[in-house]
Amino acid sequence: MLKPSDLILLYHGEKAKYLLTLPQTGKFSTHKGDIDLTRILGKEYGDAIKSHTGDVFYILKPTLADMAMKVRRTTTIVYPKDAGMMLLRTAVFPGAKVIEVGSGSGALTLILANFVRPEGRVYSYEVRKEFLENAKANVRRFGLEQWVEFVEADVEKQGFLHKEADAIFIDLPEPWGVINWAHQTLKGGHSLVSLSPNVEQIKKTKSVLELEGFTRIRVVELLERELLVRLTGTRPKERMISHTAYLIFAQKINKVNESK
Amino acid sequence: MLKPSDLILLYHGEKAKYLLTLPQTGKFSTHKGDIDLTRILGKEYGDAIKSHTGDVFYILKPTLADMAMKVRRTTTIVYPKDAGMMLLRTAVFPGAKVIEVGSGSGALTLILANFVRPEGRVYSYEVRKEFLENAKANVRRFGLEQWVEFVEADVEKQGFLHKEADAIFIDLPEPWGVINWAHQTLKGGHSLVSLSPNVEQIKKTKSVLELEGFTRIRVVELLERELLVRLTGTRPKERMISHTAYLIFAQKINKVNESK
Amino acid sequence: MLKPSDLILLYHGEKAKYLLTLPQTGKFSTHKGDIDLTRILGKEYGDAIKSHTGDVFYILKPTLADMAMKVRRTTTIVYPKDAGMMLLRTAVFPGAKVIEVGSGSGALTLILANFVRPEGRVYSYEVRKEFLENAKANVRRFGLEQWVEFVEADVEKQGFLHKEADAIFIDLPEPWGVINWAHQTLKGGHSLVSLSPNVEQIKKTKSVLELEGFTRIRVVELLERELLVRLTGTRPKERMISHTAYLIFAQKINKVNESK
Amino acid sequence: MLKPSDLILLYHGEKAKYLLTLPQTGKFSTHKGDIDLTRILGKEYGDAIKSHTGDVFYILKPTLADMAMKVRRTTTIVYPKDAGMMLLRTAVFPGAKVIEVGSGSGALTLILANFVRPEGRVYSYEVRKEFLENAKANVRRFGLEQWVEFVEADVEKQGFLHKEADAIFIDLPEPWGVINWAHQTLKGGHSLVSLSPNVEQIKKTKSVLELEGFTRIRVVELLERELLVRLTGTRPKERMISHTAYLIFAQKINKVNESK
Repeated sequence: MLKPSDLILLYHGEKAKYLLTLPQTGKFSTHKGDIDLTRILGKEYGDAIKSHTGDVFYILKPTLADMAMKVRRTTTIVYPKDAGMMLLRTAVFPGAKVIEVGSGSGALTLILANFVRPEGRVYSYEVRKEFLENAKANVRRFGLEQWVEFVEADVEKQGFLHKEADAIFIDLPEPWGVINWAHQTLKGGHSLVSLSPNVEQIKKTKSVLELEGFTRIRVVELLERELLVRLTGTRPKERMISHTAYLIFAQKINKVNESK
Repeated sequence: MLKPSDLILLYHGEKAKYLLTLPQTGKFSTHKGDIDLTRILGKEYGDAIKSHTGDVFYILKPTLADMAMKVRRTTTIVYPKDAGMMLLRTAVFPGAKVIEVGSGSGALTLILANFVRPEGRVYSYEVRKEFLENAKANVRRFGLEQWVEFVEADVEKQGFLHKEADAIFIDLPEPWGVINWAHQTLKGGHSLVSLSPNVEQIKKTKSVLELEGFTRIRVVELLERELLVRLTGTRPKERMISHTAYLIFAQKINKVNESK
Repeated sequence: MLKPSDLILLYHGEKAKYLLTLPQTGKFSTHKGDIDLTRILGKEYGDAIKSHTGDVFYILKPTLADMAMKVRRTTTIVYPKDAGMMLLRTAVFPGAKVIEVGSGSGALTLILANFVRPEGRVYSYEVRKEFLENAKANVRRFGLEQWVEFVEADVEKQGFLHKEADAIFIDLPEPWGVINWAHQTLKGGHSLVSLSPNVEQIKKTKSVLELEGFTRIRVVELLERELLVRLTGTRPKERMISHTAYLIFAQKINKVNESK
Repeated sequence: MLKPSDLILLYHGEKAKYLLTLPQTGKFSTHKGDIDLTRILGKEYGDAIKSHTGDVFYILKPTLADMAMKVRRTTTIVYPKDAGMMLLRTAVFPGAKVIEVGSGSGALTLILANFVRPEGRVYSYEVRKEFLENAKANVRRFGLEQWVEFVEADVEKQGFLHKEADAIFIDLPEPWGVINWAHQTLKGGHSLVSLSPNVEQIKKTKSVLELEGFTRIRVVELLERELLVRLTGTRPKERMISHTAYLIFAQKINKVNESK
């Protein structure tokens, strides 16, 4: 039974969907009429409710992708298609200690938090205070704050406070500035990933990764294309997001080893 | 310190990489010479080792993507790019109870198992005994068997044994045959996803999803493109896998609700 | 030297470009100020001119792609990326007799006309009078009308007036209705191409092509992705047109032949 | 009626197709048996013929794309998808004088020759004698040599012999070396296009284009994806060519103009 502070997706279609935290009482205005939220308390996910105009909304369970796409943005966010690949090509698991730098808007933070809980932690570093506060608010909104430790720090200058990270996620305009620190902090043989929109950033990141002792450096991009299945016919959607970021993956080589 | 039964990726390059479980003793033959595995015991992930030909291999931590791509295949596998998206658009989390049908080769099974542990479970249904046994062996090989319960059953005829699933993953040639059962078994408002290579399968699945009480039905495909960053120049790789499967997502509407 | 009735592209950037036919005299209003067109007479392609606000416009030679994209549209147009492929996988050449059905907005018509002149002809069939008139006006605007013969006819019912076509281009909602006629009219062993946005249309077209005596039936789609090269970095443009149409190509088998 | 020296495509499927020039007499061996070519003389395009094993081949009219893909290669060729776009975004038409540098294997040469005839010309420059000879042989094989003038020259050092080109096509490892010459030789306001596989080449080319007096500089890539339409289902082909080249287009600004 839904109760105050539960998170719901009010859904009337992709163009009329609303992610909200249930209050004790109140009214919610949509493009398809107002909804009395008090009437949702006691219902279940999957139930329907009508707005005052008679339009039907479904009360759906929000997915992680919904949350990530709906964070209040101070920066470009990490898209679900990219975050999904990042989970599978690094060591993320319940109990993992992972590092993120910077926090950005917290979209990736909450995805990571979801998958490392309950024993693991996300250590999320951010140098810009207002971004940090926004990311914190976003993670708190979705109830994942207890698995995230935010650190206000300039990693390029100071490095990381934490050690033996299972994975490191870099989302910085100049990722190369933190790679030596990442090498110190990441577990041997484990993976980091950095995302950047531009080819030049990827090239410079790759060079520094090679210098600092990483191997298996691979760059990919993912394209997500929607297929419209309608009575009038089936075809790819006419427009798509063509580019979000390149992802560069690398695995750490220990500095002292047999190859010397 | 690496010890017998640890899982490693011996890496000399993308064309000479080997995923193996460390034995007590033994020799491993590669395209770049033989490696005495006994010498790896006591090393760490990230260390290097030379084969008898003097070629250097790194001992890397295998990622989930490595494991999924290296299962012994009796079927087409679910690719990491697709599995990543499936995680984010359904309710997978540590503690979740999720259902998979069919088990296939176990590639998706082990990915799900990784993310629901330690309290959650993957209930993996498969009607073909030899596929079930192979999937089991693959999951066991990667040490994730304690979070998976395999069920040999014809779901289309018998339905699911389990109730209140947080998410359902369908990978069947005829997914429409299990959708009524999926509706009974899935939590209200929660998501299922089905993957199929062909447009016709997606169309029929969509029709049946609508009939059986699902909303927010969306179809996507993901394209993964590698970017080659080399001294001679940066460009997308010349060839790519263009198509693995379409993913169809849907969320359950409860049968008795206000909209009646 | 530019003179009245010459076609020019006034170019201040992709968002401020104007395709126009030079008049004897007059003023042209742009988002970047007004331009006295009389001052363009006597200039050359490649020269610059300032608007009354001091913004510089270049007087460029419009390409066929510019013309095709700038026709007055009553229908979805054939995009340059698709038209280019159609030229190379059929027999279009100076002197060719090619058939188009329907005329649509005339975008493909003018592309074909450009390449069959001066001895060849485009026979462009269209059943909807207002579309025909619009296509005619578009082709006339770009000075290519003498190589096009427009025919107002319902090809599905009446077939084609012309015989021995070197190539046939079909752009109809129900292409299958004209394929038997196309077989009669196309030269043996030569190619036709049909474009359709939906998978269902392509499937039905393919079935009818096989029935009516065509071989080498192939379906492709083309994706055009812009690469932004800027001082701030190089990356694919964030959004793109993902889908215009599927192209289905086929070559005619003669009805009486050795294989019987 | 087919006669000696006619060009045909013997077609038994995409994996058993043969482009050949008919001889007076002779036998042709395929993977599906031998064909007595003498028996083809007197037949028509679109007719069928059986090999000695009873397999049916169709005698098809080769398209320009077939010819371009079947040139004897000494270099990477220009693909039809790219050539088609190049035709539409430059000024190619019957009667045009266009320049190509370098000739490569002649794939683009023969495409251009097809569309500028009968009054136009392709001036094809190549510095490497053996490439020039191969390109010549390829163009001659397809009967298009009378519209091509090959020039053995080092354009970077010597520039072009021809003036007032309607369009210039550059396919060189270092395109920037000929851009000042291209500016001198191209008509004002007209287009050139250069293709390069690597991002770095495109960036340097763009810089030099800007310096030398070009505007409207745009970079695109085209992806061609085949759709398989089969009784067992419809889906994109599993593998595709992901990258051939980036195309960079630009239009010439005259050096002395009002903007000074």
